Amino acid sequence: MTRTLIEGGLVVTAAEETRADVLIEDEKIVALAASDSAYAAGWTADRTIDATGKYVIPGGIDAHTHMDFPFGGTFSADSFETGTRAAAWGGTTTIVDFAVQTRGQALREGLDLWHAKSDAQCAVDYAFHMILSDVNEGTLKEMDLLVGEGVTSFKLFMAYPGVFYSDDGQILRAMQRSAGNGGLIMMHAENGIAIDVLVEQALAEGRTDPRYHGEVRKTLLEAEATHRAIQLARVAGAPLYIVHVSAEEAVAELTLARDKGLNVFGETCPQYLFLSTDNLAEPDFEGAKYVCSTPLRPREHQEALWRGLRGDDLQVVSTDHCPFCFTGQKELGRGDFSKIPNGMPGVENRMDLLHQAVVDGHISRRRWIDIACAAPARMFGLYPKKGTIAPGADADVVIYDPHAEQTISAATHHMNVDYSAYEGKRITGRVETVLSRGTAVLDQRQFTGRAGHGRYVPRGTCQYLT
Amino acid sequence: MTRTLIEGGLVVTAAEETRADVLIEDEKIVALAASDSAYAAGWTADRTIDATGKYVIPGGIDAHTHMDFPFGGTFSADSFETGTRAAAWGGTTTIVDFAVQTRGQALREGLDLWHAKSDAQCAVDYAFHMILSDVNEGTLKEMDLLVGEGVTSFKLFMAYPGVFYSDDGQILRAMQRSAGNGGLIMMHAENGIAIDVLVEQALAEGRTDPRYHGEVRKTLLEAEATHRAIQLARVAGAPLYIVHVSAEEAVAELTLARDKGLNVFGETCPQYLFLSTDNLAEPDFEGAKYVCSTPLRPREHQEALWRGLRGDDLQVVSTDHCPFCFTGQKELGRGDFSKIPNGMPGVENRMDLLHQAVVDGHISRRRWIDIACAAPARMFGLYPKKGTIAPGADADVVIYDPHAEQTISAATHHMNVDYSAYEGKRITGRVETVLSRGTAVLDQRQFTGRAGHGRYVPRGTCQYLT
Amino acid sequence: MTRTLIEGGLVVTAAEETRADVLIEDEKIVALAASDSAYAAGWTADRTIDATGKYVIPGGIDAHTHMDFPFGGTFSADSFETGTRAAAWGGTTTIVDFAVQTRGQALREGLDLWHAKSDAQCAVDYAFHMILSDVNEGTLKEMDLLVGEGVTSFKLFMAYPGVFYSDDGQILRAMQRSAGNGGLIMMHAENGIAIDVLVEQALAEGRTDPRYHGEVRKTLLEAEATHRAIQLARVAGAPLYIVHVSAEEAVAELTLARDKGLNVFGETCPQYLFLSTDNLAEPDFEGAKYVCSTPLRPREHQEALWRGLRGDDLQVVSTDHCPFCFTGQKELGRGDFSKIPNGMPGVENRMDLLHQAVVDGHISRRRWIDIACAAPARMFGLYPKKGTIAPGADADVVIYDPHAEQTISAATHHMNVDYSAYEGKRITGRVETVLSRGTAVLDQRQFTGRAGHGRYVPRGTCQYLT
Amino acid sequence: MTRTLIEGGLVVTAAEETRADVLIEDEKIVALAASDSAYAAGWTADRTIDATGKYVIPGGIDAHTHMDFPFGGTFSADSFETGTRAAAWGGTTTIVDFAVQTRGQALREGLDLWHAKSDAQCAVDYAFHMILSDVNEGTLKEMDLLVGEGVTSFKLFMAYPGVFYSDDGQILRAMQRSAGNGGLIMMHAENGIAIDVLVEQALAEGRTDPRYHGEVRKTLLEAEATHRAIQLARVAGAPLYIVHVSAEEAVAELTLARDKGLNVFGETCPQYLFLSTDNLAEPDFEGAKYVCSTPLRPREHQEALWRGLRGDDLQVVSTDHCPFCFTGQKELGRGDFSKIPNGMPGVENRMDLLHQAVVDGHISRRRWIDIACAAPARMFGLYPKKGTIAPGADADVVIYDPHAEQTISAATHHMNVDYSAYEGKRITGRVETVLSRGTAVLDQRQFTGRAGHGRYVPRGTCQYLT
Repeated sequence: MTRTLIEGGLVVTAAEETRADVLIEDEKIVALAASDSAYAAGWTADRTIDATGKYVIPGGIDAHTHMDFPFGGTFSADSFETGTRAAAWGGTTTIVDFAVQTRGQALREGLDLWHAKSDAQCAVDYAFHMILSDVNEGTLKEMDLLVGEGVTSFKLFMAYPGVFYSDDGQILRAMQRSAGNGGLIMMHAENGIAIDVLVEQALAEGRTDPRYHGEVRKTLLEAEATHRAIQLARVAGAPLYIVHVSAEEAVAELTLARDKGLNVFGETCPQYLFLSTDNLAEPDFEGAKYVCSTPLRPREHQEALWRGLRGDDLQVVSTDHCPFCFTGQKELGRGDFSKIPNGMPGVENRMDLLHQAVVDGHISRRRWIDIACAAPARMFGLYPKKGTIAPGADADVVIYDPHAEQTISAATHHMNVDYSAYEGKRITGRVETVLSRGTAVLDQRQFTGRAGHGRYVPRGTCQYLT
Repeated sequence: MTRTLIEGGLVVTAAEETRADVLIEDEKIVALAASDSAYAAGWTADRTIDATGKYVIPGGIDAHTHMDFPFGGTFSADSFETGTRAAAWGGTTTIVDFAVQTRGQALREGLDLWHAKSDAQCAVDYAFHMILSDVNEGTLKEMDLLVGEGVTSFKLFMAYPGVFYSDDGQILRAMQRSAGNGGLIMMHAENGIAIDVLVEQALAEGRTDPRYHGEVRKTLLEAEATHRAIQLARVAGAPLYIVHVSAEEAVAELTLARDKGLNVFGETCPQYLFLSTDNLAEPDFEGAKYVCSTPLRPREHQEALWRGLRGDDLQVVSTDHCPFCFTGQKELGRGDFSKIPNGMPGVENRMDLLHQAVVDGHISRRRWIDIACAAPARMFGLYPKKGTIAPGADADVVIYDPHAEQTISAATHHMNVDYSAYEGKRITGRVETVLSRGTAVLDQRQFTGRAGHGRYVPRGTCQYLT
Repeated sequence: MTRTLIEGGLVVTAAEETRADVLIEDEKIVALAASDSAYAAGWTADRTIDATGKYVIPGGIDAHTHMDFPFGGTFSADSFETGTRAAAWGGTTTIVDFAVQTRGQALREGLDLWHAKSDAQCAVDYAFHMILSDVNEGTLKEMDLLVGEGVTSFKLFMAYPGVFYSDDGQILRAMQRSAGNGGLIMMHAENGIAIDVLVEQALAEGRTDPRYHGEVRKTLLEAEATHRAIQLARVAGAPLYIVHVSAEEAVAELTLARDKGLNVFGETCPQYLFLSTDNLAEPDFEGAKYVCSTPLRPREHQEALWRGLRGDDLQVVSTDHCPFCFTGQKELGRGDFSKIPNGMPGVENRMDLLHQAVVDGHISRRRWIDIACAAPARMFGLYPKKGTIAPGADADVVIYDPHAEQTISAATHHMNVDYSAYEGKRITGRVETVLSRGTAVLDQRQFTGRAGHGRYVPRGTCQYLT
Repeated sequence: MTRTLIEGGLVVTAAEETRADVLIEDEKIVALAASDSAYAAGWTADRTIDATGKYVIPGGIDAHTHMDFPFGGTFSADSFETGTRAAAWGGTTTIVDFAVQTRGQALREGLDLWHAKSDAQCAVDYAFHMILSDVNEGTLKEMDLLVGEGVTSFKLFMAYPGVFYSDDGQILRAMQRSAGNGGLIMMHAENGIAIDVLVEQALAEGRTDPRYHGEVRKTLLEAEATHRAIQLARVAGAPLYIVHVSAEEAVAELTLARDKGLNVFGETCPQYLFLSTDNLAEPDFEGAKYVCSTPLRPREHQEALWRGLRGDDLQVVSTDHCPFCFTGQKELGRGDFSKIPNGMPGVENRMDLLHQAVVDGHISRRRWIDIACAAPARMFGLYPKKGTIAPGADADVVIYDPHAEQTISAATHHMNVDYSAYEGKRITGRVETVLSRGTAVLDQRQFTGRAGHGRYVPRGTCQYLT
């Protein structure tokens, strides 16, 4: 048995801020003791980490990543190996990635493929959601099986007709099924049918630059789809999780639903909190770097997202990490924004960006840990193994230096992509040391992990219901 | 020149209640004079109608009828001849019927067919909306032409997949077109894709009685579609008219939209104001008489509809007159509610039922005339020829006895259908005499009209925009 | 008997726009005939007014004036003589002025005094509301009597503690009484108790300029009082009319109340529609010209007021005409904005400013007549004698030239005040001729009226209830 | 040093549910360890409490009690001695009581008196809020001093004119002051001025029974005052805490405010969650037992309160414990409900009733601890000493048996009052052992505490702000 002691830090969880020493035995946290107590003073360990002046926080959980993801004829640039290594660098110790059903094939085949992609590759722990590309009698039945084996959430798309799109009848059926089996439907809420009309019109009129990607994917069409998904969930009696909420009007739909007491949840992403249509309008096709869906919105929407996060109308901040290199990938869309692969890198930056939000006064320190660690853990059935620092939890722990200064840059990041969406941004705060189940994978800014350390984690069902 | 004088009545329009004599020359109203004036006392005429103790009101405009309408393998039971005769009996002097585009054919073909069905058949004046079954480049272009020739409103369906259904992209395109050409989109707002799932499930579970028609067509799915149509209209920058609003939640969507100042309008029908799911649940398949879509709702919804009418969140009461005989037609759906032809008779009863609402205190006398005459005239470009009593207007005038008592019954009505939805209902008030462009078509409860008196009326564009 | 004929104009009422000739016998309108009819062609009269190319509209009703009104130790600058003459110049043929109860005295005494002030002085017809300064058992009983004799509306103040202020208990009692006797409570809705704290603090901190008048009377405190008045009216079961609504947040409270179907009404004034805090901030104490309560608001509020007027959440535009000369009166507040007499001139400008709103596209032509003539007539029990052009109505008629151009200026206006709030504003449209009960008081821009022509008009109760 | 070990229980806090052993040294919790760890197995202690099958929860915090409180000419029946003993029996280890300023005297005098009443009397820890009966320059200055010495919250009344009532100007001033000094304004939100009119009218009409207490204190007047307090807090830029929210409409005002991101908080009480106007209507004057203000509401309001608690629109459940004996005290109001002392007993029942809500499915186990322990601790500046189980916190710990059954009764309760508001109610769950700062004050259902063990706790400022 190996005993690790983290002493002198401020333990910050979603609920508490405690000056406590943390004792780890092998892969688990076994005890916390008041740092100033005689009791803690008596503790000994194989390894002692001095966290004086630092935060001791749960490892981050990024509940929305797309490693090695096929989109628009190419694949996202991070493999499970490179992507989870970057996650570790950024203080994230669990990712939940999306296995993809190919149309016409079974969910099982998609899931098997994602297991194959990730097996023995990951630096940190990982789990899977399942993308349903094809809701039918067969896949509905498979949903039950997958819930049973720890894939408890299913993503549907109201966008991307002909690719991932499900119609309202398919959505309703999948929701009804999840109401029965405990699964959680995750929704990409944009009216893709209407958007495709606007895309076609824009291209026909020569509006082909990246910024038109933002203009045609209108806020009203995100809000509409959000509203529709909520109504369908009410008909089905099922909970609902809206992914990557970006528009103020969509937040308003969530607020309204939650005021009614419905089990409706929302996720946003750092790009919507820190970037805007100004980025999409960057010249020389640079705007393509910021093409993702839902799209970036005008700067004024950010305050609604922060307010949603503070007031718990949004619960989770994930990255939707889906990187494509500018050279060779994003460039596929020169002259036609609709051909730009949708997605941005971010798995490495999330914990830092959200700490910056603490520094900037947008959220409290505890809320930082909640939206980045605890809420995703509860939402996706990883609690209390993951997402908190408590006796019995997995020893996924980050020593975070709240005073260090850093500048985000593609020159220094560890994601396998040739640009950073936050290039040059100054951040106060930095991940110093990262334990994954008791093992240091980052040690004083040295990577000490390895592909294959990370394990697949079967998940329970959503623990966030009221 | 023939001169007709209506003297001694209370002239009630949407705006005024005046003790005035009305002078008609041939087909037009030429003057109004204070009944107690020396001036009026000097008037003479070829024919004088004594309206003492009666109301003198504009002829009703029923903006939603389906004569000789193909549905579910059968046709609605009223032809233009029988239907407009019944309209005259009920004090309605103009109908706006729905010409139907057959999928794969041009709008023109449908319109021509409806002209053929109606030509020389009508007892009162008539006009046409156009149902778009197939929004495509060709039909979009035809819309412009039709607006030019007086067919200025176009109905789309979010229900009935595979029949009349348009997807959100088609809806958006049609709305964009109408934003340019001045047309008004009329929407059947129910999420038919989701409803069809619930229909299939109900039938599979043996829930086949008429009342399940009401249960599967959920209020949330009417409200959802209403919301979606409004958002699409906002994207298109087009006005929008929701037909046959029945659910409180749908009224709430209209209220919200109108509070924002949007040009969104709503129609309801007498069946939603006076009938309820109690009727749908009548035993021995009698509930089939009340099967229409949107469906009848629980009684509690009625107050929201009345409030909407009082507060101008609903502007128009039409009938959606679409009668099918119980014997031989409604019976097609025994054992499968989804096979019951959708529709109810009502063109003859509307003015009386709404007068009853005045008697019951739901609406004022002037509001009665507004929702039944003036608002439909303005909404559909018939004003000021139709819908009011004013110098220069068509002499479509009803002498209405507010004190007469009657009982609605299939035994005495003039619609070509073997049941009445309001069988046995006692009404205070009755149409006594009806002039259509100066000619009596009903004279002291004697039908004096004829097929062919009624003329086709090309319409202008919506006059209700703010 | 004198017969007057107005021919060739476009008769515009709240409901209709008709090419009609108008026949007047003595003081009444007796008939309208279609201008192009043979019938109208045969009309003869003692006097014929050619209205070709002009509008023929009902005389304006200004339901909120303060002639010879005591405030802050001085009196408003217009007497009933000068004020009603200016009204006539501006196309207003009826004013409803506020008789004032002095604290400790009976309503009757106040009403008698106002009769004395106005008797034989007025150029146009007039009526009275009653200001209750002191709600007690005695004045509550007097309310019943006043309703009986045609003073059917009672103004209460939530502002001006120690002067006109009523507390919530007094307000509730007065509302309960009006629920019984048919009276209408008119409310000055500002939280004067809280405002007085902010006034005191502003003055103590040296913020003494006119613009601080606007800053301390916060929109939230207008909205709060509006909300409170509505709730009290609900408790009492009484209708409610909010005077001089200026803040977007207050409009929102009205919208919410009306969405619930409550009998809650709102008035705004031209100054809130056309002026803003920019005016209050004019240098050299010029801002004092624009000091009134509720105060002018930032320009952004105007759109909410226009939307409220379009959507009938606001029903009436009155002037709150209460002029004080800049020299000698407004100057009382140099160095202390709280000593500036509250009020602005406007009775002469209202019809023109609102026509300009038609030209500018804010409202339709018919809505212009509604908010300026018909709605105040219905609201305050003057209908159908006043507010419309219909057989039997008083012949209060304005010939309005919609194409004339004018510039508003104190140099040319007829109000007894040394400045204009709209100095230099260009207006399209001008009053040309004004009939008051058949007599020309303005004839082709020549004043032909006289003090004493105007009669006191006892009023019925509110006709605007749903 | 005394070491206490609680082993084998389920530690439940607002955030976590952990199988952990809890180690206490003297008055503090020093460590938690996973129960199943070798590590915990090695722990030894002077006293070991076996919590197998039990919950280990933080001691309750009742943030709203009135011990020895003067009202209506009498005093609440519990002294600090009897009241805090009952609190201990009920698992509450901290109360925050209301010191009262007498009108015309300094806050200091009131506070001194409450210290005198409580000193050496209490079985558990206690702190004070301050009731402001008289907001003036002097008391505003005293507020700053009191915040400095740990009395950081100030209660104002919009009810009880002539007694505790503050007008809106006083409220605004106190809020402005608290915005500066960090204090929290607690508001009794009922429009007492209007209510007193209705009281007078009810009594005059012979409606004197207890149930009329509920009828005159209308929900609309609670909602109105809640809205007004929120608007005043917005003007002042201050946070606000509404006490004893009982009406659905008042919850709606809080929801609306919180949706805007305002720092507005709400408390409800068990009586509003479990009792209703049915109780107020109990015959033979028994309804008087349930007279408190805000009053009990119709049963339908309860769901809104539960939803508010689940959705964090209400944050705290306190008791408003203010007991008056039926005999001799409540009876003062026979024949005049307005003379019934307002208040109910409850400090002993709160933790159990809220556990019953867990059993009944209204709230989760963690939310139980949040609203009863953690949220009041944060709201009133007692965190992290109180309200949680964490290293460094005060060892205020309750061993709670979730399976025990009990029946609430005056025959067995420990409050000094002759009736129970919940007489006969069956509860699942019971407090077994209670530690106050490490000392057992209740030990296996034996009271082992003593007057004087409880200490006064100075408080920090509100930690709940966003």
